[in-house]
Amino acid sequence: MISTQGDAPTTTAADTPFTELLALEQVESNLYRGRCHAGAPLRAFGGQVAAQSLVAAGSTLPVDDLLVHSLHGYFIRTGRTDQPIVYEVDRTRDGRSFAPRRVVAVQNGEAIFSLSASFHRVEESPDHQARMPAAPAPDGLPELWEFGPGHGGWPIFEMVLESRCASDPRRGLPDIGQGPRQQLWVRTKDALPCVPLLQACALTYISDIRLLETAGLPYVDRPGERQLASLDHAVWFHRPFRADEWLLFTMESPTYASSRALARGQFFTQDGLLVASVVQEGLIRRRPPV
Amino acid sequence: MISTQGDAPTTTAADTPFTELLALEQVESNLYRGRCHAGAPLRAFGGQVAAQSLVAAGSTLPVDDLLVHSLHGYFIRTGRTDQPIVYEVDRTRDGRSFAPRRVVAVQNGEAIFSLSASFHRVEESPDHQARMPAAPAPDGLPELWEFGPGHGGWPIFEMVLESRCASDPRRGLPDIGQGPRQQLWVRTKDALPCVPLLQACALTYISDIRLLETAGLPYVDRPGERQLASLDHAVWFHRPFRADEWLLFTMESPTYASSRALARGQFFTQDGLLVASVVQEGLIRRRPPV
Repeated sequence: MISTQGDAPTTTAADTPFTELLALEQVESNLYRGRCHAGAPLRAFGGQVAAQSLVAAGSTLPVDDLLVHSLHGYFIRTGRTDQPIVYEVDRTRDGRSFAPRRVVAVQNGEAIFSLSASFHRVEESPDHQARMPAAPAPDGLPELWEFGPGHGGWPIFEMVLESRCASDPRRGLPDIGQGPRQQLWVRTKDALPCVPLLQACALTYISDIRLLETAGLPYVDRPGERQLASLDHAVWFHRPFRADEWLLFTMESPTYASSRALARGQFFTQDGLLVASVVQEGLIRRRPPV
Repeated sequence: MISTQGDAPTTTAADTPFTELLALEQVESNLYRGRCHAGAPLRAFGGQVAAQSLVAAGSTLPVDDLLVHSLHGYFIRTGRTDQPIVYEVDRTRDGRSFAPRRVVAVQNGEAIFSLSASFHRVEESPDHQARMPAAPAPDGLPELWEFGPGHGGWPIFEMVLESRCASDPRRGLPDIGQGPRQQLWVRTKDALPCVPLLQACALTYISDIRLLETAGLPYVDRPGERQLASLDHAVWFHRPFRADEWLLFTMESPTYASSRALARGQFFTQDGLLVASVVQEGLIRRRPPV
C-alpha cells in the first residue's frame, strides 16, 4: 500500500521524490485523501488525479499477487490544487482471477474524476505484440521542457521527469495512415521502489503528458489561444516494466472532429517490449484572436 | 428515448426487429429493465448488455441535442439470459457542453457490468482522420456465419446482422506492425430509425462481435478448447453514421500476454469516413486437450 498516515502531502512537486506525488492519507476504510499539483495553470493535473485514484484502488486489494491490468477514467469537473481531493473506493468484486475496483475523486462534495480499474493474477499464455517503431536513442536528444509549456512541457514535469524528444515536438512525424504522430522518451527522475503498483501509477501519471498535443500538431500555427482538456483516459498494462527506466512513448491521433480528438499511445522499453497502451479523448478548442 | 413501458421484451432475437434487442422497460426514474440473448452459449451477449446500458444512460438526458461520444464498460460477472437485467443510472452531471452518465447492470443483486458514458453537444472544429485501409467491396464476399460459431459467428447474430468477410476469418491479414488483423463489413438487417442514440447503440452491439477473435488468429490451429471472455469495452463515436448501412470494421490486436489480449477496431463508412473506434481487452485461455 502506498499511503502516508500522517500529515497531508505537499501541493507542489518541487524537491519531493516522485513517490510523494502519489502519497495518500487513509481517512477510513476505502477512503483516502491527497493533493494534486497543477498541469495547465490552476487545474489539478489529470495524470496525477488518475494515478492517485489508482493508488487508492490498489490499497484495497486483499492479496499481494494482483497486478493492475487496466484503468478507465472520466474527467468530470476541473480539479483544484488548493484543496485536498478525497478518493472513495468501491470494492466492486474480489473474484478468483480478477478484482475490479471503482474510485470516485471528490472535491467540495462533487465528483471531479471517476475511475474503474481491474487487477489480475498473472497467468501463462502465448505472446504477441506490436513492433516497436524506429526511433533515435535518447542520449543527446533535446528535452521536452526546452520547447516551453506551449508544447505540453509544464515546468512542474521537469522537476520529476526526464524526457528526450524522439521527434520534433513542434512538428511531429509524417502521417502514415493513423493521423499526426510523435515519439518521446520518458522516465521518472527518481529511482522508484520495485513495487508493480507504484510503477503502474508512475506510468499513468506520465501517460497524460503530451498525448493530447499529438492531435493539435497539424494546427499549431493557427492563430488564437488554444484550450486543451482531457475528457477520458484509459491505460492497459501488458507486461512488467520500470517507469524509472527509459520508455519510448509513441503517440498518434487517428481522429479530430467536433472539437474532440482521440489520441492513442504505446509504451515500449528500450529492448522493444510493449508494456502499456493508452487512449485518451480530449477537447481541443481555439478562442478566436481578439 | 428507446424504451417499452409494457411487458418485458422477448429473450431471443428470432423474428424481432433489431430495435427490440435494445428495448428497455422503465421501472422508475433512472431505473430500467431488459433482457439479453446469449452470445457464447448461456452467457448474456456483452455487446447487447453494453448497448442496453447505453440506452438506459441516454434515456436520462435532459435535452435532445446531446450525442454520445464515448463509453467505457467493465464486464464484472457473467450475465444470465433467463433472467432480466436491471440498469441503474447515475446522472453524474448535466454540464453546459457535456453530460456524463454512469450505469450499473444488476442481476440477482450483483453488478454484472458497469458503464460510464458521456454525451456532448456538437461543435465546429478542424477535422482530420485515419486513412481507410484498402478492402474489397462487400458484394460477393462470404458471410461470417458461413464459417460457424468457432469463428465468432454465433447463429443469433445471423438473424439481426448482415456481414461480409473482407478477410479470411480463419487466417486474417498479415501483421504489418500492430499484430494480427482482419476486416469485416457489417450492418443491421433491419432499417433503423434515424435516431443517433439508436444508431450508436447498434454500433456498440456490433463492436463486440469478432473483435477479440482478432487476437486469437495466430493460435487457431493449437489443440485444446479455447475460452474467450471480454474484460472491458470502450467505444468512441467520432462522426454521424448509420449502422444499417455497410461499415468496414477493421481490427488488430497489438498485444497478447498473461492470457490477456488487447484488440482495437475502427469503423469506416463505404465513403471512407472514420465514424467510431473501439478497444477491448479480453481473456483468452485454452484448456489442454483431454
